[in-house]
Amino acid sequence: MNKGLIFVISGPAGSGKGTVVAALRKLIPELGFSVSATTRAPRPGEVDGENYFFVSRDSFEELLRNDEVLEHTNYCGNMYGTLKCEAERVLTEGRDLILEIEVEGALNVKRLMPDDTVTIMLIAPDPEELEKRLRGRGTESEEVIKSRLSRASEELKLAPQYDYVVTNETGKTKECAEKIRGIIAAEHQRYSRMRSVVEEYIAYKK
Amino acid sequence: MNKGLIFVISGPAGSGKGTVVAALRKLIPELGFSVSATTRAPRPGEVDGENYFFVSRDSFEELLRNDEVLEHTNYCGNMYGTLKCEAERVLTEGRDLILEIEVEGALNVKRLMPDDTVTIMLIAPDPEELEKRLRGRGTESEEVIKSRLSRASEELKLAPQYDYVVTNETGKTKECAEKIRGIIAAEHQRYSRMRSVVEEYIAYKK
Repeated sequence: MNKGLIFVISGPAGSGKGTVVAALRKLIPELGFSVSATTRAPRPGEVDGENYFFVSRDSFEELLRNDEVLEHTNYCGNMYGTLKCEAERVLTEGRDLILEIEVEGALNVKRLMPDDTVTIMLIAPDPEELEKRLRGRGTESEEVIKSRLSRASEELKLAPQYDYVVTNETGKTKECAEKIRGIIAAEHQRYSRMRSVVEEYIAYKK
Repeated sequence: MNKGLIFVISGPAGSGKGTVVAALRKLIPELGFSVSATTRAPRPGEVDGENYFFVSRDSFEELLRNDEVLEHTNYCGNMYGTLKCEAERVLTEGRDLILEIEVEGALNVKRLMPDDTVTIMLIAPDPEELEKRLRGRGTESEEVIKSRLSRASEELKLAPQYDYVVTNETGKTKECAEKIRGIIAAEHQRYSRMRSVVEEYIAYKK
């Protein structure tokens, strides 16, 4: 069985990342899920190892120091992260993993699992369109919009470290998800991942 | 407009290359065609620059020496080849080009146009299946079958120089063509080919 791969999807606010990833999960229902680790206390009914791996803050920080956390975030004072061993488990089952994370986390996943990670930067087709989307929400102040635009420009300075850049045209979520599906299919056919089939031929009836 | 790319497809006898490329052309009708150069004389009704570029053997050899021929072959004493300038013309129109050629030619295209060329090796899912296909034809002697198998194994030694390896399962031509379509879509999204969009963002409202 082919080993799975990690597809990391990043994109500035307004890129439509969440919608595209949801469409992608519909398109490829066999995508895997990894259980995250968190320092927050379990809620009634939550099962350790199923909903989350519940760990103490000390344990989480030790995992971080040991490079056992692929990416993490702090939300309402609690830490949440993807464990390397958990990702490995999903890939070994032959399933691909989608991680929707911001730029720094994305590059950290690539650093920790370079051979198994493919990075994709999702963006609006052009900055004018991004600005239109951010303004279209009608809820943000001029200041917030300007800071989002400048943040998008900062984030895109890291695009050269990404494998792929995919534009998400307005109203074309499905087309965008299809482009990512193409990338997923293609990456499994790279020579480095097909080596064992090639070696069978070379060894045949020698 | 996005520039086109050259997708070179190679595969040992029995890989089903011809059938897969035909299915791919059906799947992506907008693929481009390049007019080949040949040393053979025009037949009645054939138009220079339309059916072929008709050239003398001396001219063809000079084109070869000047690295202006991406790949060529000798058939019934006449030379046939793909001109670099003609491929460039198709790519500039924004069309992708499929070249179905053997291993040495493929690597030559990659050498002459490295940034625009993607190489794909097509193979039967395993050598046992390839042998079955070659025997299934029922027309070849034991000697011929053995020489084809050993040639396939030799050709696959060059697979590490290919970008992709795609298996063509028996009776699944369309699935195989779909995998190649995924590769075509993905390659257009590589960072190096999306650089101009990224640069627009970085320059925006500076």
